[in-house]
Amino acid sequence: MSFEVHILGSNSAAPAHGRHHTSQVLRIQDMQIMIDCGEATQLQMKRYGLRKNRLSHIFISHLHGDHFLGLMGLLSTMHLNGRKTALYLYGPVGLSEIIQLHLKYANTRLSYPIHFQELKGDQSELILDHPKITVQTIPLQHRIPCTGFLIKEKPKPKRLKKERVSELRVRDINILKKGEDVLDESGNLKFKNTDYTLPAKKSRSYAYCSDTKYNEDIIPLVKEVDLLYHEGTFLHDNLERAESTFHTTAKQAGIIAQKANVGQLLIGHFSNRYKELQPLLEEAQKEFANTALAEEGKVFTIEE
Amino acid sequence: MSFEVHILGSNSAAPAHGRHHTSQVLRIQDMQIMIDCGEATQLQMKRYGLRKNRLSHIFISHLHGDHFLGLMGLLSTMHLNGRKTALYLYGPVGLSEIIQLHLKYANTRLSYPIHFQELKGDQSELILDHPKITVQTIPLQHRIPCTGFLIKEKPKPKRLKKERVSELRVRDINILKKGEDVLDESGNLKFKNTDYTLPAKKSRSYAYCSDTKYNEDIIPLVKEVDLLYHEGTFLHDNLERAESTFHTTAKQAGIIAQKANVGQLLIGHFSNRYKELQPLLEEAQKEFANTALAEEGKVFTIEE
Repeated sequence: MSFEVHILGSNSAAPAHGRHHTSQVLRIQDMQIMIDCGEATQLQMKRYGLRKNRLSHIFISHLHGDHFLGLMGLLSTMHLNGRKTALYLYGPVGLSEIIQLHLKYANTRLSYPIHFQELKGDQSELILDHPKITVQTIPLQHRIPCTGFLIKEKPKPKRLKKERVSELRVRDINILKKGEDVLDESGNLKFKNTDYTLPAKKSRSYAYCSDTKYNEDIIPLVKEVDLLYHEGTFLHDNLERAESTFHTTAKQAGIIAQKANVGQLLIGHFSNRYKELQPLLEEAQKEFANTALAEEGKVFTIEE
Repeated sequence: MSFEVHILGSNSAAPAHGRHHTSQVLRIQDMQIMIDCGEATQLQMKRYGLRKNRLSHIFISHLHGDHFLGLMGLLSTMHLNGRKTALYLYGPVGLSEIIQLHLKYANTRLSYPIHFQELKGDQSELILDHPKITVQTIPLQHRIPCTGFLIKEKPKPKRLKKERVSELRVRDINILKKGEDVLDESGNLKFKNTDYTLPAKKSRSYAYCSDTKYNEDIIPLVKEVDLLYHEGTFLHDNLERAESTFHTTAKQAGIIAQKANVGQLLIGHFSNRYKELQPLLEEAQKEFANTALAEEGKVFTIEE
């Protein structure tokens, strides 16, 4: 079962060096969700073979243009394609108002409903409790209200030992998958759970933290996630600029990853001043070895 | 002196077949102005080597996304580049409100002033009277308020015959360039204008008409322009669809060009249903031979 993070763009501020604004598509099991949607995201989806109508949920971190100016075009194209399926949209105060204003002046009523949930931003909240995943917000510290997102697979059923399945009825299987023993009518042990099952596959997790200044308050939330995307806009010799613009250096992203003991770190939201990204990578890797650059076109997979 | 129309995109509705949404940059003498600004226009400008900070005027025809969703990103990038020069922006009711709402939630004050002029749309008005050009609106018939634009060079001075310049003082030259004779102090003819001058170079003109249904009312306004861009969204076998969506067929665009006796016709705003554009071109050419496809990356030059 897939758990993939497709990077569509990870450049900050203005597009540069052939790099696009921030957007990611997550393919988790049979779900396809988007985090942030910079300008030209719909073109990037096409470029990388991702289908728009598969998207069920879109999460917008904040209302700086490089994180959401592609949203209106994407919503519009899904409308023109005749989408009927509801879309679940999460974003800060103002996002819904901006969308409504566009639709008003375009005199357009979308062909599908949007269920919009406004994010609080000041404390972590559970915003999606889906049969397969949960999504929680991660309060971030930026110049305007901004939230990260923690996406976790729900606990999975125990796996049956193939060689013993033939002994079981459907009812037994359902009980065993839950991790319980099967009892007979008199209440005596019939099938001991561990004789018939293997441990469940692990529930994978991904955290997205952009944009934010260095903030150790997020560590408990992202503790031991399999994959952490954390902005690393600047090299650490630009710490002052990072702080004044509420951004993080690559080194600081590495420190967060190390302190939170995550599986892998992705850095992104690269400043235009860096044509070459290798120095950012190396700086983060000094703090946390298992770091990669979230360059567009790359797909990061979390194994089960 | 240049008069060039750079096509950055000319696809309608959703981007498709590698074609982008509508935007054009005009380079007229030393001015650089933009008409419409679909999503990813700033990326297209980079691709074709056009510099954003040279833009002085932007004209938005209407508030359907494929004509203006790149504007906010372009304005934002010019801000991030530290632009100081005022920008003159023209568009329908609502455009300014949408921009202000974005800036409010981004908590951003642009580094440069925008002088916004709201377009009336119901009758042609002179919206720019610049030393080098004039711009008039062309009322169009679309599903929402929409205007085209007629851009004309102002009359140019007469040219001096090079072999006779040495006989003249600066004051004489200024008089002769205006087309007048130079008189001596007693009021007698000193330099007869036609002995010293050649006719002025012609004042070139360009008209942009998109989006609109077929509407002969525009003909007097675009009469004999050197270059007419007119949407030709559909083939004529889709006339019914063109009419119901307030668009024009390629054949109808050709008829307008023929009736208005223009120099050259460009058709654009191609529907997604056409991967190949040649049939649209051929259909328009049957009505008006000197027609070209306004494909992105092409530059159309009007000679003096």
